[in-house]
Amino acid sequence: MSSSFGRTLRVTVFGQSHSPAIGCVVEGLPSGFAPDLGRLQRFMERRAPGQGPWATTRKEPDVPEFVSGLNPRGETCGAPLCALIRNTNTRSQDYAALVRVPRPSHADWPAEARWHGSQDVAGGGHFSGRLTAPLCVAGGIALQMLEDRGVSVAAHLAQVGAAVDEPFAALGSPAEQTATLASQIDALAGRSFPAISPEAAAAMQAVIEDARKGQDSVGGRVECVATGMPVGVGSPMFDGVENLLARALFGIPAVKALEFGRGSQVAGLCGSQHNDPWVPGPDGAPVPAKNDAGGLVGGLTTGAPILFSVAVKPTASIGLPQESVDLATGEAVELRVKGRHDPCIAPRAVPVVEAVTALVLLDALLTYAPQ
Amino acid sequence: MSSSFGRTLRVTVFGQSHSPAIGCVVEGLPSGFAPDLGRLQRFMERRAPGQGPWATTRKEPDVPEFVSGLNPRGETCGAPLCALIRNTNTRSQDYAALVRVPRPSHADWPAEARWHGSQDVAGGGHFSGRLTAPLCVAGGIALQMLEDRGVSVAAHLAQVGAAVDEPFAALGSPAEQTATLASQIDALAGRSFPAISPEAAAAMQAVIEDARKGQDSVGGRVECVATGMPVGVGSPMFDGVENLLARALFGIPAVKALEFGRGSQVAGLCGSQHNDPWVPGPDGAPVPAKNDAGGLVGGLTTGAPILFSVAVKPTASIGLPQESVDLATGEAVELRVKGRHDPCIAPRAVPVVEAVTALVLLDALLTYAPQ
Amino acid sequence: MSSSFGRTLRVTVFGQSHSPAIGCVVEGLPSGFAPDLGRLQRFMERRAPGQGPWATTRKEPDVPEFVSGLNPRGETCGAPLCALIRNTNTRSQDYAALVRVPRPSHADWPAEARWHGSQDVAGGGHFSGRLTAPLCVAGGIALQMLEDRGVSVAAHLAQVGAAVDEPFAALGSPAEQTATLASQIDALAGRSFPAISPEAAAAMQAVIEDARKGQDSVGGRVECVATGMPVGVGSPMFDGVENLLARALFGIPAVKALEFGRGSQVAGLCGSQHNDPWVPGPDGAPVPAKNDAGGLVGGLTTGAPILFSVAVKPTASIGLPQESVDLATGEAVELRVKGRHDPCIAPRAVPVVEAVTALVLLDALLTYAPQ
Amino acid sequence: MSSSFGRTLRVTVFGQSHSPAIGCVVEGLPSGFAPDLGRLQRFMERRAPGQGPWATTRKEPDVPEFVSGLNPRGETCGAPLCALIRNTNTRSQDYAALVRVPRPSHADWPAEARWHGSQDVAGGGHFSGRLTAPLCVAGGIALQMLEDRGVSVAAHLAQVGAAVDEPFAALGSPAEQTATLASQIDALAGRSFPAISPEAAAAMQAVIEDARKGQDSVGGRVECVATGMPVGVGSPMFDGVENLLARALFGIPAVKALEFGRGSQVAGLCGSQHNDPWVPGPDGAPVPAKNDAGGLVGGLTTGAPILFSVAVKPTASIGLPQESVDLATGEAVELRVKGRHDPCIAPRAVPVVEAVTALVLLDALLTYAPQ
Repeated sequence: MSSSFGRTLRVTVFGQSHSPAIGCVVEGLPSGFAPDLGRLQRFMERRAPGQGPWATTRKEPDVPEFVSGLNPRGETCGAPLCALIRNTNTRSQDYAALVRVPRPSHADWPAEARWHGSQDVAGGGHFSGRLTAPLCVAGGIALQMLEDRGVSVAAHLAQVGAAVDEPFAALGSPAEQTATLASQIDALAGRSFPAISPEAAAAMQAVIEDARKGQDSVGGRVECVATGMPVGVGSPMFDGVENLLARALFGIPAVKALEFGRGSQVAGLCGSQHNDPWVPGPDGAPVPAKNDAGGLVGGLTTGAPILFSVAVKPTASIGLPQESVDLATGEAVELRVKGRHDPCIAPRAVPVVEAVTALVLLDALLTYAPQ
Repeated sequence: MSSSFGRTLRVTVFGQSHSPAIGCVVEGLPSGFAPDLGRLQRFMERRAPGQGPWATTRKEPDVPEFVSGLNPRGETCGAPLCALIRNTNTRSQDYAALVRVPRPSHADWPAEARWHGSQDVAGGGHFSGRLTAPLCVAGGIALQMLEDRGVSVAAHLAQVGAAVDEPFAALGSPAEQTATLASQIDALAGRSFPAISPEAAAAMQAVIEDARKGQDSVGGRVECVATGMPVGVGSPMFDGVENLLARALFGIPAVKALEFGRGSQVAGLCGSQHNDPWVPGPDGAPVPAKNDAGGLVGGLTTGAPILFSVAVKPTASIGLPQESVDLATGEAVELRVKGRHDPCIAPRAVPVVEAVTALVLLDALLTYAPQ
Repeated sequence: MSSSFGRTLRVTVFGQSHSPAIGCVVEGLPSGFAPDLGRLQRFMERRAPGQGPWATTRKEPDVPEFVSGLNPRGETCGAPLCALIRNTNTRSQDYAALVRVPRPSHADWPAEARWHGSQDVAGGGHFSGRLTAPLCVAGGIALQMLEDRGVSVAAHLAQVGAAVDEPFAALGSPAEQTATLASQIDALAGRSFPAISPEAAAAMQAVIEDARKGQDSVGGRVECVATGMPVGVGSPMFDGVENLLARALFGIPAVKALEFGRGSQVAGLCGSQHNDPWVPGPDGAPVPAKNDAGGLVGGLTTGAPILFSVAVKPTASIGLPQESVDLATGEAVELRVKGRHDPCIAPRAVPVVEAVTALVLLDALLTYAPQ
Repeated sequence: MSSSFGRTLRVTVFGQSHSPAIGCVVEGLPSGFAPDLGRLQRFMERRAPGQGPWATTRKEPDVPEFVSGLNPRGETCGAPLCALIRNTNTRSQDYAALVRVPRPSHADWPAEARWHGSQDVAGGGHFSGRLTAPLCVAGGIALQMLEDRGVSVAAHLAQVGAAVDEPFAALGSPAEQTATLASQIDALAGRSFPAISPEAAAAMQAVIEDARKGQDSVGGRVECVATGMPVGVGSPMFDGVENLLARALFGIPAVKALEFGRGSQVAGLCGSQHNDPWVPGPDGAPVPAKNDAGGLVGGLTTGAPILFSVAVKPTASIGLPQESVDLATGEAVELRVKGRHDPCIAPRAVPVVEAVTALVLLDALLTYAPQ
């Protein structure tokens, strides 16, 4: 069950980087919904490689074929949806040597230790970031379904190296937060590079370009917000919205940290600073006066926007020489990773974070909503 | 299934803060193991309240009764183990008013929105930190079983407010890391306050005492290490060791962030800095020359120690006046939370993090080990 | 997860025949429901031993203690419900020899092969029929919740040896079936021995008494009906109502066969005989004109009563001499099973079948109902 | 999760009768195994339609494409295996009217009640027997893997209408049973029609031909045996081998009853008849002297062959006129089901039962084997 997540809405991802195809099976989608396939394709393209100087030059069409789950009118029909993306433009020969010399920061050696040579090493096999494409198919549909339920999910590139974007709004009155978030999300919709501030975008691109020129790579941070979730969604202990998001988000390759609300800063705060006071909302029901909690307390939604960020490690494949071991001889060797790689994977992770978040939140709404 | 986690080894936690009892059911424990109940009790006591000036003065004996799962010789017998802890020393009257005025940073209002008055509000009900006691029963047994498999788990208080402890070793040659970690873990074994450095311990206790005197609270950070895990344990995508730890660790109340290895710092690093080179180990098999990855790549163990930290928010219950809303009238009111509360919950979270980690790692070994 | 079943409503059973206690944890119960504990106790008593000459003379009080899951008003509160039944009146010495000489038709030897001596052999350990008591606690609450939803579940003893009861109605117009079933269910409510026909009851009791006198045992068949289930509940393939019932019902010790509707007779029927025609119901919607399908087609409810039966093998423990093997010597030995045992377990299985059915149907309604 | 089953080895089936493709995803297959694709194809052909006068004349090639899960050498590689079968030769127009007039004994009306028109009605959608083709892909591989572990699975047509085949051996000494079973399984290997006795085969074919000529259909019974399973596999209560088989086997369309060992006959037996005595095997370990239990006690294997049968209802689609209801008007109408249908589906169910059994037993071996 390692390639699956979800309770009512269950996503299973299959495929290897260089297998004939990759894809997903999605069980439990609400029936009678006709996904807008044009919008879905545009969403997929935000993840696709080859979009700018900061990304790999590989070109993959990534057009999903829906082989099941839709009725003749194109609506979800209660049966599991299966979408398939063919793998093309593969270069298996780039990877042949890696069977013998594992790459630093890749799973080559742990996979060899686990599967003793039967693992599919080409392109990272089932570990490949390529598997985020079917996640985006499933998540792109979930995003559309959430929109019908009044929930929006948006992410941006919050940091690359030392360059930082402005954060999503978490301070000010609930009305002010809502207004600021709306304008931030609007701004992102028009950007080819997923930062809110044009200046930050330029600075980040410069950092990435430097890494590319140096045959190096650089890490980043993706921040995500979900607005419109009703209060009281989730379940205490191990199926809180944090838990569900956490399990799924760490499935995105390269994610090394996850922080909700103020995140790791809470270690330095007092309760009187961190606690979000309740104030009466328009109908008298409590709403948080600020959002240090990131919209989640005890695993349940507070009614405030859900706010979190993930840290994405630098692309492991770099052109610079690195130390490794020849598995055949047990001796130290120098390794240079060839092939075409993103100097920073974080920009392409932005829609993937949105996709995974949408899948988790739709599942939480279907499973753990107020009765 | 919100109160359960695990694949082969499955833990279910039940109880409310003020129900007759709390406890756990553990399915899938390897059979034929006789837990050392004296050691288990000493482990439980590290979590128990009332241990020092920095903790609540409530006293709870927390002696588990094993009502099933052991044979007459006291060994695990293949049947689910159920351990029960009676709730005593409860003061329900402290919480009566909270039904009407939700506490900031607690789940009172989200729970009311979800369950419309049927939730058990006393002491936080099923959201209570009290439920970490049965987690420590299950985890304490898992710790002993791991030890038999050569795996050690240890955690310390890495930060409270601005006071920081020395971190677990992640630099230097593998042999140097191992030696330093061993001495750090040894040092912790003798401490009543779970910090490696005595100076850091004193500074942290001072921060906590200040919070207590100010009727306020303060957050913290717990760092955890697991040594001895073989290489290749885990599974790609959603059952990587990161995913499994993440889902479980966010079940510890007050955890708001989780970072593996360099964690959120990776956003600012280059690949040439972050990548851990492989060097030949004693038998020629690759070992990481340093441990920025925290012992995990692609969801699988690398053979290096597993290293991560969680940020724990300040105790939500503080004596200072706070803003809230009277649910009966929909009007703003001032709230003062009474009762006895830890000014910093992070010290008591240390053994809980160890317990949860042990349960997850034992499950991973039983489910996803090299064939 | 072997001791658990259910999707939204999840039941976990723990305990061994002679452990300090047995019990269950039930997650996912709808909140705000106050079980009638008096009715629950009367339901429990239908399963309890010691009720008549046909049953074992052991006396077990079987009064559940609810240690979690209810709020102070006695209502389900959203947290997992845990109920505990203490084991008393155990006679471990009766079983000491069985470690060495496995009983025919018991799991003694398979358990030894699996757990190599660590299994708890006393009273059958975790295999014991005693574990149906907590199933009746959970199921007794589910029965009450179903009643609130217009669903009734009733079972009777359809056969013991060659003696047979009249079957639940499956022929005639829907209105006639409903009327007959109602009168059959009414009749059962007044019976201490669970047969519809008093003559059949007398014949069955005679068969059981003969078995008892002969130090032998006899098998039986339990038929169950559920009325009031709406049409369209269930899910195709592996979570059809048949699948869910099947997995759970084979968890009742001694069940060896399960038949829905006409059951194994369908092998001899033509489609023109077996197919249930659709006729317009009062509102014009289709209803089956007869009920050979047992209320289930393709895993989904048809709107007709759900009808099935389970065959219960003769009690494995008999006083007559039997052949076995001495595990210490590997030689054939004669075995006489001592202790107090039901000469026919089927009468006591009747409420257990009702309990398990109620748990499965409530879960199906919560998980797979029409949207 | 309705389209999935399995613990360690998890099978998910997707597709509708007339969707672009059907297929399966199989997680948890042991790695390093190269399936013999020629043998797999021959196994698939045993299920394929169009093989004889007793079957539908539709022709479906049913050649699976493996889009993931194999490495370049054709071995399982640790990643989920996905196999795809394209749907061709569909005739959607045959089914257009069925949206309005539900067929007796089909799920048309329950599906309409559940999904309100969004279900895919063509060819039965996700309810179609066509989905047993991907089950045979997955199960055909499992059969090969089991063979490597010394386990054989074979099924035959035990009954069609009043015609019955000789049963698999369950009496006589263990050695005699083994010899008889071996010759029975050998005999089946050479049969195009899956009966042991040629006379029974002829009688069954005559019954089927009569049904075909009469535009009617007929039911059947499939008996299955698995030899070579070690003793002690399985788990008590809800993951006994019976439970696991039961949940999966009722996923085969048209299965209405499942009986282990003596099955429903146990209701009429005494313990002294039904209990299988233990006798010393060649190494002194106990083996059952006969096999009334069907190789399973308390959910665990006894070491004897696993024996069970399933009853398969008559094909629901018959040419004879039947009563139904026009959903648009709510009035009774006469229905004649057109299209090409098997007059008896049971012969084609034989390899499907083998496939499902193999998947369940391989999963049980991987999950619940002696330690």
